[in-house]
Amino acid sequence: MKAKKVADKGLKIIPLGGLEQIGMNITAFEYEDSIIVVDCGLSFPDDDMLGIDLVIPDVTYLKENRDKVKGFVITHGHEDHIGGLPYVLKELNVPVYATKLTIGIIENKLKEHNLMKSTKRKVIKYGQSINLGCFRIEFIRTNHSIADSAALAIYSPAGIVVHTGDFKVDYTPVYGEPIDLQRFAEIGKKGVLALMADSTNVMRPGFTMSEKTVGKTFENIFAENTTRRIIIATFASNVDRVQQIINSAAKYKRKVVIEGRSMVNIISTASELGYLDIPDGTLIDIENMKNYTDEQLVLITTGSQGESMAALSRMAASIHRKVTIVPGDCIVFSSSPIPGNEKSVSRVINELSQKGAKVIYQNTHVSGHACQEELKLIYALVKPKYAIPVHGEYRHLSTHSELAQEMGIDKDNVVLMRSGDVLEISENSAKVVDHVQAQGILVDGLGVGDVGNIVLRDRQHLSENGLIIIVVTLEKYSNQVLSGPDIVSRGFVYVRESENLMEEAREVVNDALEHCLDTNVTDWGKIKTEIKDTLSDYLWKKTKRNPMILPIIMEV
Amino acid sequence: MKAKKVADKGLKIIPLGGLEQIGMNITAFEYEDSIIVVDCGLSFPDDDMLGIDLVIPDVTYLKENRDKVKGFVITHGHEDHIGGLPYVLKELNVPVYATKLTIGIIENKLKEHNLMKSTKRKVIKYGQSINLGCFRIEFIRTNHSIADSAALAIYSPAGIVVHTGDFKVDYTPVYGEPIDLQRFAEIGKKGVLALMADSTNVMRPGFTMSEKTVGKTFENIFAENTTRRIIIATFASNVDRVQQIINSAAKYKRKVVIEGRSMVNIISTASELGYLDIPDGTLIDIENMKNYTDEQLVLITTGSQGESMAALSRMAASIHRKVTIVPGDCIVFSSSPIPGNEKSVSRVINELSQKGAKVIYQNTHVSGHACQEELKLIYALVKPKYAIPVHGEYRHLSTHSELAQEMGIDKDNVVLMRSGDVLEISENSAKVVDHVQAQGILVDGLGVGDVGNIVLRDRQHLSENGLIIIVVTLEKYSNQVLSGPDIVSRGFVYVRESENLMEEAREVVNDALEHCLDTNVTDWGKIKTEIKDTLSDYLWKKTKRNPMILPIIMEV
Repeated sequence: MKAKKVADKGLKIIPLGGLEQIGMNITAFEYEDSIIVVDCGLSFPDDDMLGIDLVIPDVTYLKENRDKVKGFVITHGHEDHIGGLPYVLKELNVPVYATKLTIGIIENKLKEHNLMKSTKRKVIKYGQSINLGCFRIEFIRTNHSIADSAALAIYSPAGIVVHTGDFKVDYTPVYGEPIDLQRFAEIGKKGVLALMADSTNVMRPGFTMSEKTVGKTFENIFAENTTRRIIIATFASNVDRVQQIINSAAKYKRKVVIEGRSMVNIISTASELGYLDIPDGTLIDIENMKNYTDEQLVLITTGSQGESMAALSRMAASIHRKVTIVPGDCIVFSSSPIPGNEKSVSRVINELSQKGAKVIYQNTHVSGHACQEELKLIYALVKPKYAIPVHGEYRHLSTHSELAQEMGIDKDNVVLMRSGDVLEISENSAKVVDHVQAQGILVDGLGVGDVGNIVLRDRQHLSENGLIIIVVTLEKYSNQVLSGPDIVSRGFVYVRESENLMEEAREVVNDALEHCLDTNVTDWGKIKTEIKDTLSDYLWKKTKRNPMILPIIMEV
Repeated sequence: MKAKKVADKGLKIIPLGGLEQIGMNITAFEYEDSIIVVDCGLSFPDDDMLGIDLVIPDVTYLKENRDKVKGFVITHGHEDHIGGLPYVLKELNVPVYATKLTIGIIENKLKEHNLMKSTKRKVIKYGQSINLGCFRIEFIRTNHSIADSAALAIYSPAGIVVHTGDFKVDYTPVYGEPIDLQRFAEIGKKGVLALMADSTNVMRPGFTMSEKTVGKTFENIFAENTTRRIIIATFASNVDRVQQIINSAAKYKRKVVIEGRSMVNIISTASELGYLDIPDGTLIDIENMKNYTDEQLVLITTGSQGESMAALSRMAASIHRKVTIVPGDCIVFSSSPIPGNEKSVSRVINELSQKGAKVIYQNTHVSGHACQEELKLIYALVKPKYAIPVHGEYRHLSTHSELAQEMGIDKDNVVLMRSGDVLEISENSAKVVDHVQAQGILVDGLGVGDVGNIVLRDRQHLSENGLIIIVVTLEKYSNQVLSGPDIVSRGFVYVRESENLMEEAREVVNDALEHCLDTNVTDWGKIKTEIKDTLSDYLWKKTKRNPMILPIIMEV
């Protein structure tokens, strides 16, 4: 009976992010006294998170169970899968396991955060397994928009879970081999409890094009623009894309300049670790550009998302210190805008066009994520009992659910989770049994978690209508007005043009204050509320605006 | 000789908006003592225009030449072509000329702004011309995503300018006739000086699909979802779209509920003017929904752009007072997101999916703007001497320039203008001879133009890092500190969690203040600067944040 009971006990799967905060991928797997964590990403702030730099996972649940946590197992080196690590490792010092390039990129971060000494890390090869507590984790080769990406087969006493990580099927990858479809099939044959697959492109029919097709596009661009300087913006981490630009550059005898901090970092790491093949003498320092003519140069740069401080955006705005865009420059966006970045990208394109540059931004990118037919292929090979769609907004997960059902998964066996849900899963059942903290923690400057909803609401209020400060000095005990009320405003109206309004506002405040004092209201809280309400009504009537009003009373 | 001189004198074309502020379409045409103005739109604020509701055209140039201005000639009833009218008419009371539905929609606005009595307006039919000063303007039938759209042939002593307005070529429109291609050809045959054509879809190859194809999609959706309530969100002004939904509803014996203020307004105007054919008993009031089952209902609603206060967004957020989304509802976005709205639309789709609704948002919309082949057709018919691309960002205008050249326009005869440019154009030359004010005026609540760059910069600063106010009361003459320094912060950090930081900040301020007073610095400006700089340095060191710091000195 006891054995039966243990076998029945479910594996717990707990996504601590990535389903509501897109990007912040982190999933805990727990069985009895073992926990492993797959990925530890960060996300970038939503539009309403004013002033926030980053959002990192809330690992309260892991800290409460710190004795169980055996380590982080990382699928690949993108920010949304590794960016939270340096923050989380400071609070939860456990080993990190990943493939070689992924570890290389993580080490760049550990150095920045001074965590190299304290963090154990281990490079795992494709096909290799590691034992962590009662789990065994096997790394399986996949393809993605960064080299060395892995899917994971997680062997637990409750069964095998296959986690695809971010993946596509590329039969002709630029670096390395195609995804190890045979191994997916073999594991599928053994019997897989659950498949957790990438939902990013689940809306798109068909098959994602091979990364190599972009290489052909580059060839054409180089062939057609032999007299122009070529500047190509792409994702810093897309090492294969950079390789293809370098290949075309070498063929057309152009020197390559790498520009943008993250681009320089990743390229040098990838190059040191052997993921990039750069012919001698191809790369030149940006300082040496002046020794070459336009047609002898290609720049590879950051800024493909229109990020305001990235190299290409600075060139477009004429504030880059070393590169000046000139008429005739050929500028390629080898990327598509991440949702939310469309307007920034357009702005940069417009600025570059106005400077007379030729800007190419269509058909210059392929995705790193599987489309519908690739997902179906993985379902056909793995044949899981349960499907747990991951890596997507709710609409993606919901469409993924339909795809899984088309592939023969029972509707009741498709589990749509939210961040923080605790799923207990076994051969017999899969259900959400609990919910843990998984809101994401806001990082603003050096502050981690010191900005919460109240602060954000205040920033929102200030950003929409500005503020008005009223200061008055009262005499102790007598409550006589000794000075003021003075009014200071910021972000409300341009004061010179609104002198009357501000003068009238001062009178309104004065009247409210005098009314309080005349009627012997001495409680400061009440006086402030009276001032605030009266002024707020007055301003709404006059301007239909609602600035933040801050009454301050000084006592002498 | 004199006649020659007059013939040489150029027509002036002055876009006062629409080229940098996308949306705010307004173009003045000036010849000697006559000015006519084509369209008068508004635009919605950019992301960095915090708290701004609308942007309207700056018509300083028109006001300075008010004796010359003969009237507004309006191409169609979209906000970006008519939205600025009620604001501008208050300052420049001239007649408005447009087709019937366009005038109907304008009148809704005039009523809101109490301008019905003071504004002369005249309905013009397709094919009809009006004489304004030395101009004659002919209205030509086109197709677009709103009925009664017109292109304009502007006859001036310097030659004919054809302005397409926003248009597409729809051989099978839902309402009315296809675009009057014969008339474009006839005018082209006469000889056209310049063509100003819509650049919105100039990036897209091929031909825009007919509006009728969306009707077929609706038929399929109704046929496949016979047991569900259907809710369709689309642009309020797309009367033909609404007509097609009503057609499907009638066929499938569903009652139609119209929801959302702008939808109700436009539908009732279009219906009164005969632009909508609604079978008796089809429309029901939202209050009567309870008398029908789900499969007997279809709702047509605003909110297709994810606008936070629109009806569908309120349903998705469970704050709509009359409609509750239930599992099984079939919700259709018959629209595509306008650039910048992608994330809001996704958010609403996610919320609806999470409530169990089936959400359809792909292949449910066609554009109202001409693609490349349609633009080429117009060039082939009109054969202008000059091409002046309009209605687009710079990247669109620049691609349009290439298309015009392909169509045989001399490169030097393609004019890329910016808002405010004054183009002088004649048979002999076209050049920008001047530049006038055309920045756009910000509307915030009731305030028109009282928010400028300084206010916006302050709002930006406040939104990113919040603010810290320091108040201190000094004794007159002696400059003794009588109370304070007190510190108040908003939007900076959550104070309970940062008591130490704020306590230390107070000490830093105190030290700075004492240092000033000890060294006999008595100038308040200098004291404030000292406090601000010291505190700013301290906070940057401690938090890497840069809140707005406002020192206030009270004197008793």
